[in-house]
Amino acid sequence: MAFRQNHLLGIEPLAPDEITTILDLAETYVDLNRGPEKHAQALKGLTQINMFFENSTRTQASFEIAGLRLGADVMNMAMQASSIKKGETLIDTALTLNAMHPDLLVVRHPHSGAVNLLAEKVNAAVLNAGDGRHEHPTQALLDALTIRRAKGRLHRLTVAICGDIAHSRVARSNIWLLGKMESRIRLVGPPTLIPSGAADWGVEVHHDMAQGLAGADVVMMLRLQRERMDGGFIPSEREYYHRYGLDAAKLGHAAPDAIVMHPGPMNRGVEIDGTIADDINRSVIQEQVEMGVAVRMAAMDLLARHRREMAA
Amino acid sequence: MAFRQNHLLGIEPLAPDEITTILDLAETYVDLNRGPEKHAQALKGLTQINMFFENSTRTQASFEIAGLRLGADVMNMAMQASSIKKGETLIDTALTLNAMHPDLLVVRHPHSGAVNLLAEKVNAAVLNAGDGRHEHPTQALLDALTIRRAKGRLHRLTVAICGDIAHSRVARSNIWLLGKMESRIRLVGPPTLIPSGAADWGVEVHHDMAQGLAGADVVMMLRLQRERMDGGFIPSEREYYHRYGLDAAKLGHAAPDAIVMHPGPMNRGVEIDGTIADDINRSVIQEQVEMGVAVRMAAMDLLARHRREMAA
Amino acid sequence: MAFRQNHLLGIEPLAPDEITTILDLAETYVDLNRGPEKHAQALKGLTQINMFFENSTRTQASFEIAGLRLGADVMNMAMQASSIKKGETLIDTALTLNAMHPDLLVVRHPHSGAVNLLAEKVNAAVLNAGDGRHEHPTQALLDALTIRRAKGRLHRLTVAICGDIAHSRVARSNIWLLGKMESRIRLVGPPTLIPSGAADWGVEVHHDMAQGLAGADVVMMLRLQRERMDGGFIPSEREYYHRYGLDAAKLGHAAPDAIVMHPGPMNRGVEIDGTIADDINRSVIQEQVEMGVAVRMAAMDLLARHRREMAA
Repeated sequence: MAFRQNHLLGIEPLAPDEITTILDLAETYVDLNRGPEKHAQALKGLTQINMFFENSTRTQASFEIAGLRLGADVMNMAMQASSIKKGETLIDTALTLNAMHPDLLVVRHPHSGAVNLLAEKVNAAVLNAGDGRHEHPTQALLDALTIRRAKGRLHRLTVAICGDIAHSRVARSNIWLLGKMESRIRLVGPPTLIPSGAADWGVEVHHDMAQGLAGADVVMMLRLQRERMDGGFIPSEREYYHRYGLDAAKLGHAAPDAIVMHPGPMNRGVEIDGTIADDINRSVIQEQVEMGVAVRMAAMDLLARHRREMAA
Repeated sequence: MAFRQNHLLGIEPLAPDEITTILDLAETYVDLNRGPEKHAQALKGLTQINMFFENSTRTQASFEIAGLRLGADVMNMAMQASSIKKGETLIDTALTLNAMHPDLLVVRHPHSGAVNLLAEKVNAAVLNAGDGRHEHPTQALLDALTIRRAKGRLHRLTVAICGDIAHSRVARSNIWLLGKMESRIRLVGPPTLIPSGAADWGVEVHHDMAQGLAGADVVMMLRLQRERMDGGFIPSEREYYHRYGLDAAKLGHAAPDAIVMHPGPMNRGVEIDGTIADDINRSVIQEQVEMGVAVRMAAMDLLARHRREMAA
Repeated sequence: MAFRQNHLLGIEPLAPDEITTILDLAETYVDLNRGPEKHAQALKGLTQINMFFENSTRTQASFEIAGLRLGADVMNMAMQASSIKKGETLIDTALTLNAMHPDLLVVRHPHSGAVNLLAEKVNAAVLNAGDGRHEHPTQALLDALTIRRAKGRLHRLTVAICGDIAHSRVARSNIWLLGKMESRIRLVGPPTLIPSGAADWGVEVHHDMAQGLAGADVVMMLRLQRERMDGGFIPSEREYYHRYGLDAAKLGHAAPDAIVMHPGPMNRGVEIDGTIADDINRSVIQEQVEMGVAVRMAAMDLLARHRREMAA
């Protein structure tokens, strides 16, 4: 199998065949999760620790279920209540956990690069569950699996990523992945929410939804991350929805069979009209969540296999 | 086996033979839990998610132990810290979890009816762990098992339910259950803590403990739920204990072999004298907790069996 | 095997051969934890409940991993959010959990003696994970295992325990253990942080680091527990580090092959110089954490075996 990584820190370091390997294995876990016995042995005897320095009920739950279904011993660390409060540094905390011999360390951290730093210090395979504005690789992988299942391929698609690009690690990881798979990416949003350097990323930039969505195969809406907007322009929800919220009129510009995505949690009536979010002919939002468990199972399985091969 | 339910949302929808089926199966789990190896395989390969929108260490622990002992993969969601804070609705949260393919969803929620609403939206079997003032079915089942073990039967008993009826879903579920099993129910408490419509529930209403307890086989004390009393009359603890707290004098009116129950957590010296609570000849309060684990094991086992039969 | 305890409440009640039995068994678990499959069956079918009335991410994680790797069903109780807030007493909480038939109860509590009190009320084997200023037996055992692996023995060593002795249950448990094993103990710290009765404990007391560390085989630094200093003298961190923080100059007084220990979490630059903490030729701080999981596995395994023997 084509997978040669010690960690899953981002999409950037992955080769296209490694992405395909993860997605192919994830398909088998989709079937397992839909069946009557949701249990395999791929991580039996291994210890998985979830270290979430930022709350994320949804992503943590997905990783926890993924690990439990593969037979791992899974432990959640409430990092907000941890030794870091007693004056310990991030690195000391990581070294402490490392000394307990975990095999898989799932880390979310508010600072870009913190997860990479941590991976240098530990023996475990580290999975990035989102760091600052940097990467969120399992989100991009679950998005890719969802797209591939809906469209039959990942190449030569037109994907419009819409909304708050500036604060979104989801957007960054998706841009890496879709670029590697040779799809065409459009970023659509107000100038204040698109980084000034975006034009250099090999993507189209649009500030008008009609233009940005024209003929798109995939419409990927992002969450408006007000909690990350420190000072600067904060649009009113009403104004934002009027110009950039996905409603039937704007979606009418996309391809007739375009799918609608959202990483969740959704602000209905802000980024997206509730009717479209619930339209099972267009929206694949629930399927994204389902694919999330499957790609996390696949990623952890492949990292564990690679560790065994390296040790042998 | 007589059990035909997709969910356990309350006692109201259950037929008497279904109640008996749960209690009979629970007896086998009482034995398992008392033995040296507390483990069975009834929920092996299944995923149980505990969603507690209200804190309840005791009930959550009981459901968690029940699931673990039956081999389930059990996950606790800290719903206070969840996506709901980021603006997501209860239904979106439920749909998100549903997409992860849980088999059993244990839900506690502060609003009456919220658990039923949620059950309509998901594929999992939903167990109500208490919703507002509505129902708390596993509490009524564990009370019934405790009574049946002490008295040898559930019919033709006189059961006095005493104290804060108004705020108690425990009382409501017990009234449903004991009524279906043809026992005689008396509600005893101050007029302000008994709902005005209670007289229509097929129960006797008493405001005097001596009358209410006269000849009773079972004396079930309730917790004074001050945290749910918004405005209105709040009795002083001292006054309340004087008139409605269970002490030796008041218990003297009940049958000589009457048992004393309390769902916990107890306020000693408010609802009940500590000496009576600790009297192993009268109090079955610890046994109620023990039966709690067993009935939850039985309920989850039966729901899982029913799902398998429906799928086959 | 020489182990005759129903509980592990402290080091004080243990005989030297019991300590040796725990350490010897722990060695086998060190090997297991370093191997590719970190799983045994010693606690299969048993229920372990972790009740932490004080936050301790590190110790709780260590006990949780230990239990999971031995196959126990492990449940964490967030005691801060528990029924105790609703007015329930510690004893009622303990009796409630006891009624759920746990086999192992791991308890941390801010009050000295609270864990012993609790052990009298329950059927489970109770492990003290730290109570007030009283004992922290698994910390002393992991320290002993670390020392024995580095020095080849536990007797006839000179061990300097340095810093905030007054607030340290770690110091107390280590004094018991090292005394039983016939090592020589020195307490080193400012007069305000060494209890006045310490001279009666069969230890040397020093207020000067050069004297206290002279020729020592083991230098055990303690955490400055400012959060436990209510009123009285609180040294400034700078002054404290100058006089009692471990730096190269002070360490120069110890034996050339002296090892450096710290129970964590560390305040770098307060109790210890970061360079020394990271010096893999002197510092065994990470190994202490590793030994922690192993001795907890051994202690729980032995307690479970003893219960089975008593039941047979």
